[in-house]
Amino acid sequence: MSAPTAAGRQAWAYLSRVVEAPTAALHALLAEHGAERAAALVRTRQVPPGLRRSTEARHHLDTAEADLARAGALGGRLVTPEDAEWPGWKLHPFATTVPAPRQVPVLPVALWVRGPARLDEVTDRAVSVVGTRDVSGYGEHVTAELCHDLAADGWTVVSGAAYGVDGAAHRAALTAGGPTVAVLGCGIDRAYPAGHAALLARIAEVGLVVSEHPPGTTAAGYRFLARNRLVAGLGDGVLVVEAGWRSGARSTARWARELARPAMAVPGPVTSLGSTGCHQMIRTGEAELVTTAAEVVEHVGRVGELAEVSTSPPRPLDGVDAALRPVLEALPRRGSASPQQISESSGVPLDAVRAALPELELDRHVVRTEDGWSLRRGAGA
Amino acid sequence: MSAPTAAGRQAWAYLSRVVEAPTAALHALLAEHGAERAAALVRTRQVPPGLRRSTEARHHLDTAEADLARAGALGGRLVTPEDAEWPGWKLHPFATTVPAPRQVPVLPVALWVRGPARLDEVTDRAVSVVGTRDVSGYGEHVTAELCHDLAADGWTVVSGAAYGVDGAAHRAALTAGGPTVAVLGCGIDRAYPAGHAALLARIAEVGLVVSEHPPGTTAAGYRFLARNRLVAGLGDGVLVVEAGWRSGARSTARWARELARPAMAVPGPVTSLGSTGCHQMIRTGEAELVTTAAEVVEHVGRVGELAEVSTSPPRPLDGVDAALRPVLEALPRRGSASPQQISESSGVPLDAVRAALPELELDRHVVRTEDGWSLRRGAGA
Repeated sequence: MSAPTAAGRQAWAYLSRVVEAPTAALHALLAEHGAERAAALVRTRQVPPGLRRSTEARHHLDTAEADLARAGALGGRLVTPEDAEWPGWKLHPFATTVPAPRQVPVLPVALWVRGPARLDEVTDRAVSVVGTRDVSGYGEHVTAELCHDLAADGWTVVSGAAYGVDGAAHRAALTAGGPTVAVLGCGIDRAYPAGHAALLARIAEVGLVVSEHPPGTTAAGYRFLARNRLVAGLGDGVLVVEAGWRSGARSTARWARELARPAMAVPGPVTSLGSTGCHQMIRTGEAELVTTAAEVVEHVGRVGELAEVSTSPPRPLDGVDAALRPVLEALPRRGSASPQQISESSGVPLDAVRAALPELELDRHVVRTEDGWSLRRGAGA
Repeated sequence: MSAPTAAGRQAWAYLSRVVEAPTAALHALLAEHGAERAAALVRTRQVPPGLRRSTEARHHLDTAEADLARAGALGGRLVTPEDAEWPGWKLHPFATTVPAPRQVPVLPVALWVRGPARLDEVTDRAVSVVGTRDVSGYGEHVTAELCHDLAADGWTVVSGAAYGVDGAAHRAALTAGGPTVAVLGCGIDRAYPAGHAALLARIAEVGLVVSEHPPGTTAAGYRFLARNRLVAGLGDGVLVVEAGWRSGARSTARWARELARPAMAVPGPVTSLGSTGCHQMIRTGEAELVTTAAEVVEHVGRVGELAEVSTSPPRPLDGVDAALRPVLEALPRRGSASPQQISESSGVPLDAVRAALPELELDRHVVRTEDGWSLRRGAGA
């Protein structure tokens, strides 16, 4: 596939403006006619019945040239399915055919991006990290730690640039020197939320700001809900750090599952409202419990990337054969005991006690005394 | 089944002394000959080969009469499978046949108990609550809250009287005025740990202290491991509140699963070592995540006892039909917009916008103005 011509790119830009929410019917039209012809058909209202409603309100708005210029002035561009950097592999599970499978998100027409990173490369190994705007100190700390570790391990952090968990995720990735991708529900020229203008500018300098809407598109609730499918779509899995009962993060995790990608949630204190959504998701099987970046990688990573098995320090009795332990534990803390006494106390037959004691002596757990056997000092029985 | 005669009870007491760890072979002997004859056969070493080793060390120790007297002096008694208060239904899944199914715990010979409660009644609706001795402030708080709520709901709290989670569980149940059962790895006349002497005395006053070992038996590590199967066996499920990587609590939860009963774990901060075992159990599917007493009851309760579905307060847009939301959100925060402007901004066809606006007006979300339509003040769009 070769990059579109200038006219072709304008057709893609026009379609991304005209269609608020892409439909499988539009993708069918694109597949049949290509972008330029599809755009001409939409412009002249020569579309199949299934496309009339969704293209009616804006078919006359042809701001493609201005939109492309506006993006370019910001260091941005329109990435189309014909461009080399189109993340085709990542977006492969999205729906493009009629009838669209129920619940499966529909492929965006094209993606407006702003920043130096290549869209396909920066999302090649990526984790989407989302959560409540109303983050707790705990949630902020855990988000920062997990995202720092993911970034340091070479994973891109994808999020939605919202206050709370999203912002903490982007900041931690930037701090670790890793790339990060912010997917917006408004145009890439917009700073939403306004308080994250500096953060978005920084992301546009080193990572990528992404939107399916053309420049100038204002933020709206339903756009952020649709945006969530792209947050899920650009990551290898979705990690929810903190979420209340009702949370956009939960819908992003649901998109991940529809795309057959892992949804993960971080637990927290049951006394914290901020973790209720995460706990509920784990309870219902909507998400897997994870506690470290390594465990996240175990879910999203390629074959062979497994979390290390945690180990704990050995305990005093660890070196002792299970069969010998009752004998060792039957010895009094002070003084000595005879094999007979040890047998009665432990319930181990006398001959087995007699056999065990020299073994325990060899292992320096017990010592022979005048009255029988006693624990060796310093042996941690 | 009628209660055993005095001689019969002495036979049970003798066997509970002779056998450190009951085996399916012993249960087979009991089933074939009854307690008195089985005791006589053990005493005279006329046992099948499979029982020789386990009865050898103590077959000559006949302290049954003294043990029963000692228990009685403490307000205790020996509950045998022939007694009406034997919790046969609860202990039904335990192994009694040869060969014993691998991993299934073996039925205790009999149970020494101390306290006013009837063993079968007090364990009829019971949850076993266990966890680390090294409990955190969070773990102590959560244990207290969960056990208080369980006790207030009529559930008996079963635990092991250890420091940490166990102690907090017993105390919370007592505070709520509910019965609680402490299962020990030593005799019921022993206070182990010593620091819980007062707590154990209190439990013996209003609940029940239980052990499969006769009075005088000292505490030993392997006895506590074997005890864990009884903690699991006397509850309808096992709840682990806090547990490190290696924890007796985890083994108790494993016994619950072997008995086909729910194992549950409470999550906590991922930054706390005390919750690592719980998180690991949830991750591996060894335990279900629970956060409230109601969720515990959902797992252990009889049919029909379901946790209430938590609800959250309604949001401003909640009452708005999903199809109308884009129209509502396209209205400017200040000033007015024409249906045409709203159609272009939202991507909703003009006729649909024209149909939606009067509906939104009726629901008092928008008002008609001279210039078009605007948001109604106070309507939380």
